[in-house]
Amino acid sequence: MADDNTVYIGGKPVMRYVLAVIMQINTGKSDEVVLKARGRAVSRAVDVAEIVRRRFLPGLEVASIVTSTEEISREDGSKTAVSSMEITLKQG
Amino acid sequence: MADDNTVYIGGKPVMRYVLAVIMQINTGKSDEVVLKARGRAVSRAVDVAEIVRRRFLPGLEVASIVTSTEEISREDGSKTAVSSMEITLKQG
Repeated sequence: MADDNTVYIGGKPVMRYVLAVIMQINTGKSDEVVLKARGRAVSRAVDVAEIVRRRFLPGLEVASIVTSTEEISREDGSKTAVSSMEITLKQG
Repeated sequence: MADDNTVYIGGKPVMRYVLAVIMQINTGKSDEVVLKARGRAVSRAVDVAEIVRRRFLPGLEVASIVTSTEEISREDGSKTAVSSMEITLKQG
């Protein structure tokens, strides 16, 4: 699966995602992890990347950070734009 | 001043910062603007960058995005870590 090494950041406590990233690096097939977040979860994604790198896996490098805008359809059919971010962390 | 072209993103409405960035590009000496944000304002900084580029200045490119961790001293003398982000936008 292409998205195998992706961790989607939502509203759960930061440490859950930190653990998911560490698990992915330690047991996954890829030496990269991609963090994806939208809207207010974007700040949490940055927290996750910083905590993983500072406290747990100092060898991990930020390979890229890309921002974009996604169109979300509301239940009533109207659309709204939300910022999103992808942080790619790579084992150095 | 070195920080002349920096826009600090805080808790004000997003469009204030969008306007500040547009003003900076149109009237400032530099063809670059640096957005700086900490903590929960990080998502707002991404919003600002996306709105400016999509709606107002499509020629503006994201030159770099850098995340880091800052130590903040609380009033009682204890310290806490907070994620920060710098987005550099450059006139293409």
